[in-house]
Amino acid sequence: MREREQEQSSANGPIYLRVRDQIADQIENGLLQPNSRLPSERVLAESNHTTRVTARLALAQLEAEGRIYRSNRRGWFVSPPRLVYNPTEDYSFSDNVVAQGRVPATETLDVTTIEANAWLAAKTGLAEGDPIVRLHRRRQIDGRSVLVENIYLNARRLPGIETFDFNRSLWKLMREHYGLELARKQIEMFPTALVDPQAEALGVNAGTAGLYVTRCSRDNEGCFVEFDEEFWLHDTLSIQVDVR
Amino acid sequence: MREREQEQSSANGPIYLRVRDQIADQIENGLLQPNSRLPSERVLAESNHTTRVTARLALAQLEAEGRIYRSNRRGWFVSPPRLVYNPTEDYSFSDNVVAQGRVPATETLDVTTIEANAWLAAKTGLAEGDPIVRLHRRRQIDGRSVLVENIYLNARRLPGIETFDFNRSLWKLMREHYGLELARKQIEMFPTALVDPQAEALGVNAGTAGLYVTRCSRDNEGCFVEFDEEFWLHDTLSIQVDVR
Repeated sequence: MREREQEQSSANGPIYLRVRDQIADQIENGLLQPNSRLPSERVLAESNHTTRVTARLALAQLEAEGRIYRSNRRGWFVSPPRLVYNPTEDYSFSDNVVAQGRVPATETLDVTTIEANAWLAAKTGLAEGDPIVRLHRRRQIDGRSVLVENIYLNARRLPGIETFDFNRSLWKLMREHYGLELARKQIEMFPTALVDPQAEALGVNAGTAGLYVTRCSRDNEGCFVEFDEEFWLHDTLSIQVDVR
Repeated sequence: MREREQEQSSANGPIYLRVRDQIADQIENGLLQPNSRLPSERVLAESNHTTRVTARLALAQLEAEGRIYRSNRRGWFVSPPRLVYNPTEDYSFSDNVVAQGRVPATETLDVTTIEANAWLAAKTGLAEGDPIVRLHRRRQIDGRSVLVENIYLNARRLPGIETFDFNRSLWKLMREHYGLELARKQIEMFPTALVDPQAEALGVNAGTAGLYVTRCSRDNEGCFVEFDEEFWLHDTLSIQVDVR
């Protein structure tokens, strides 16, 4: 806000938006390739004959739009294409990433057995106190962390699930070891801000824009199997649905 | 950033997040009702024994999460529930808002006949230069502006469409006057930042978080009918899909 007040404007509106337009054009024309590093604030300011305050506003705007991202104080980089996600299709994160020519990775951060609290009971239909295996994972695309997730599994429906290796597709594990096909999924998605601990796990500032996705899955008998709560970086996902 | 550096922290993390938690609890417990006004920054700071800088950080965090919104310098208000939108179902904005017990309104801001440019040709399958009627509308829920949209209509498929009243459901107009049922829709949604002119039309600062939604609709023969580009405020919509 304070910076905004210092920002100059011209007859064509605020100067930072003109700097933004120039950089956005360079990205769209391929002069700046995905994952390539942008010039420093100082260089951007000089080459646009403006101040570093203005250059920083232009970069913040491009970040908010999902066109560039900041990486661990190493500078600003051009965002790669968003991963296309169709909630009506039945594929795993890993298969979807590979199908789009990119490289997935999954890290299991924590596995704990807990009891369902009131919130989880309402989300899953279990009773408060029922046993749940909570899995905390971070997932990457091409080496960039794009989401952290909490997966809540029905421990009675999936006995011994906590002993498996979770750095792989959970759906394949369910199919192969429990003969389980997920029959019904309720999915909810909305924009939100990432706070800690999710922001910290993704290496971004608290308050960074994100997309919150939940998915509640049941088996053929309607029995609750899995509730997945995902926190995505705002610039990594595009939701696409084709309705006929 | 500068404010963040001045912010105090305690053993339990930054103080602004504790203030945020208290206000969020009051909202969840119904002590603060939807659309009710929050106490001023000064009052919040005093009642939480902290500074106005800290109170402001807590409010900004709650805004980013979609729990509160700012209205025309009249102060901060509790966000009403998000409108549920199921992209796989076929209903109009107005019908959907009414079905959720709320009051829709639509304002037509502009109607112009244009020629398809390269971007529109790629989105619609029309040839560059083909005639398109562009409709610019703002839509409200319970008196709050929640989205602005650009609708691009195939002028050859809908002759005379520019002469109708657009402050109503376009889909009903197509059905009743053109005998047209939309047979196929391709929908894309992703988080973004609102810039001018959309931000201005919604009465928010440029850079406010938003959700970008496009919908391309065709008739039974696959002929392009309508391309709708919507800019939603980030805290007004929840996308829900039920997959069986």
